[in-house]
Amino acid sequence: MVARSVQVEREAERAIDQDLRPYLAIPSVAAQRRGIAEATAFVERLLRELGADVQVFSDHGNPLVYGRIEGLRPETLMFYDHYDVQPEEPLDLWTSPPFELTERDGLLIARGVADNKGDFIARVAAVRALEAAGELPVSVAFLVEGEEEIGSPSIEAEVRGHLGEIRADYCIWEAGGVDRDGRPDLTGGVKGILYVDLEVRTADRDLHSSLAPVAENPAWRLLEALTAIRPAAGSVAVPGFHATVEPMPPAALEAIAALEAESETVLASLEGVRRRPGTRPVHDLYTQPTCTICGLSAGYSGMGPKTVLPAEAGAKLDFRLVPGQDPRAIYAELRRFLDAQGFTDVETRMTVGELPYLSDPGHPFVETVRRSVRETYGKPPVYQPLTAGSGPMHAVAGQLGIPCVSMGCGYDGARAHSPNENIRKADFLLGAQAVADVISSLG
Amino acid sequence: MVARSVQVEREAERAIDQDLRPYLAIPSVAAQRRGIAEATAFVERLLRELGADVQVFSDHGNPLVYGRIEGLRPETLMFYDHYDVQPEEPLDLWTSPPFELTERDGLLIARGVADNKGDFIARVAAVRALEAAGELPVSVAFLVEGEEEIGSPSIEAEVRGHLGEIRADYCIWEAGGVDRDGRPDLTGGVKGILYVDLEVRTADRDLHSSLAPVAENPAWRLLEALTAIRPAAGSVAVPGFHATVEPMPPAALEAIAALEAESETVLASLEGVRRRPGTRPVHDLYTQPTCTICGLSAGYSGMGPKTVLPAEAGAKLDFRLVPGQDPRAIYAELRRFLDAQGFTDVETRMTVGELPYLSDPGHPFVETVRRSVRETYGKPPVYQPLTAGSGPMHAVAGQLGIPCVSMGCGYDGARAHSPNENIRKADFLLGAQAVADVISSLG
Repeated sequence: MVARSVQVEREAERAIDQDLRPYLAIPSVAAQRRGIAEATAFVERLLRELGADVQVFSDHGNPLVYGRIEGLRPETLMFYDHYDVQPEEPLDLWTSPPFELTERDGLLIARGVADNKGDFIARVAAVRALEAAGELPVSVAFLVEGEEEIGSPSIEAEVRGHLGEIRADYCIWEAGGVDRDGRPDLTGGVKGILYVDLEVRTADRDLHSSLAPVAENPAWRLLEALTAIRPAAGSVAVPGFHATVEPMPPAALEAIAALEAESETVLASLEGVRRRPGTRPVHDLYTQPTCTICGLSAGYSGMGPKTVLPAEAGAKLDFRLVPGQDPRAIYAELRRFLDAQGFTDVETRMTVGELPYLSDPGHPFVETVRRSVRETYGKPPVYQPLTAGSGPMHAVAGQLGIPCVSMGCGYDGARAHSPNENIRKADFLLGAQAVADVISSLG
Repeated sequence: MVARSVQVEREAERAIDQDLRPYLAIPSVAAQRRGIAEATAFVERLLRELGADVQVFSDHGNPLVYGRIEGLRPETLMFYDHYDVQPEEPLDLWTSPPFELTERDGLLIARGVADNKGDFIARVAAVRALEAAGELPVSVAFLVEGEEEIGSPSIEAEVRGHLGEIRADYCIWEAGGVDRDGRPDLTGGVKGILYVDLEVRTADRDLHSSLAPVAENPAWRLLEALTAIRPAAGSVAVPGFHATVEPMPPAALEAIAALEAESETVLASLEGVRRRPGTRPVHDLYTQPTCTICGLSAGYSGMGPKTVLPAEAGAKLDFRLVPGQDPRAIYAELRRFLDAQGFTDVETRMTVGELPYLSDPGHPFVETVRRSVRETYGKPPVYQPLTAGSGPMHAVAGQLGIPCVSMGCGYDGARAHSPNENIRKADFLLGAQAVADVISSLG
């Protein structure tokens, strides 16, 4: 164990200049369609050099790279990563060029280093070290997509189309790292999401508001529709919305109960924010589906009065879904509900739909990972059965029917999506070790 | 009658170059604080040259000019006008310089010619002609304000402060003209208005929408408050809102019933607009108070999904009020209502408050005006007991306790507030004649 530890650290240290630096130099911004081909080629080459059998799927969007390396056993641990990154703007807030890896005060700074090019290279380095030591006990695979930062619009269809070619028995997801106390965090699932744009249009121009006794007001129509959809806080009237929620497995509820002791950490991002009354913050964060107004717009919203009756009104709704809830089914019910309530004039469009996913916290793979990282970090991991956020975990692990846990090289100062995105070099090295240990533990 | 008719027309014709042209050359845009002193001086000089005793009141805002000319009888007919105009933007849509009177195809084109510098000069010309003929049977006065285009914020206080100095027994208001059939339109009142900004703020920054189970959403709070205020179309829950409405006098209802035959004209501006179901368009336009959402804003309203929980949400509400309803009292009740319903977190601000005003359609003055214009135009006037819009008529006629009727030189192609604002020269000449005839009729 000690010998391998030194070897992994040496490989990870070497990988910073050899692999991470050139990978970060590729401005693979999916939102701006930059650097996609270059990043795909880079990932493909790296995996081939590891000895992987590589396939590139691109029937639906940016290439999805799948590479598998045969280990001592055919049983396969798959890593999910993405080669695309967020746009680097605003440029003037960066203290070093965003696409140039900068090392300073123990930090590795560059766009994408935390989210999630660092994780990917740490994983590559771990596999490389195990290969060099002739100790790859199970097979490993990499699934690297290029649309994560734009909502992974193609991965579900791409994976579905290649279920016969993608072999995996367990999955390690991207993201994760250590908390302020140095405890690793692991996450076994995600909430689902349904994002809907609503629009009402009643005229081809804004009108003088004196016409209000006679002209339909699209803003009131929209409000009536929104109130029908969500008549009270915590209650969505769309048929089946609450009824389809599956009870959380006891092991998941136990894990959530354990997190209530961590509420300060879990709710750190709520400083200075008004809380919803009558909620059990940590518990609800993980277990409650929500209906959120992300945006509202109609008429005039500048300074002072403008006596206008708007021609149109729009809202953006985001439903966060828990296990049992299906975004497509809910969207179909939502449309039927609006029509049945007389809101045929309220136009709707589903712009995001991702299923929730929950790994059984008691699954042997999940238990192996939890045990393994506890040894690597010398501290018990903080286990979230699912995040309050969403991601394409169901599209991958769900469609493959395998358990999935996220872990990574991040920390709470990583500034993912922001200027000066960074990870700590020590977390990168330890993250590679943790991956090597998980692979070994599966042996 | 024929002799005076020729005289009035000659005076009005002469006034176009002598008075209207230099008056229109002053860019008296109140919203941009341009040309106010120059316009005030112009009006003051013109009224003094007519022989008026002029007073300028400016305790509260832009100067309010009052000038009175003694006639054969002390009984005074007062004209309300305003020297301020709308901004001239967008400049590129003007076919001639906005502050240069341009005559083309029988039109007089310039910013403010329709709204309402043309009316004022026509009135001046009419008085001048009567004076020249020694036929000013009653006294006349002019009240000319400089803030009409920014909502007349000061006139109520200014008039209240000078009730002892402003002498008037009847009032002719600005605006009005002829319809497509050449029939003059007269209006004897206005709806009131209460304009309120509402705002809810729950955080100092937008949050990730995954925090929705725990963080308060200001947009839902705002919607709940708006729904409480107006639980259904046509129904406002603020105590006293509907109860204070006074029944319209039978003469007003008769006049409104007569307008139902004119519904095509009255509702011309609703082409291509979705109508509110279950309404009696013309009747409701004049008799129903309304609660209109003029603006809504929260979070993200651009293209595509953004998973954000907004930090704040805002709405702009415009209540159009009918006789009996008092904007200040309703605003106070609205605030109390919100507090009582638990919406202490919804901040409100009243930005406009104007009382409704209704002249008794059976008042002898109103009847005299109606009879007089019928003779001048050779057609029966279309009489609106009140407009669906608002204006400071109560601040003037209401505080003075006198009947008020609006009439003017406009037509349906006048483009008030828009580029290429214009009146027809023939309407200007006939408008001056109509004013001279009304004054004579009072003799």
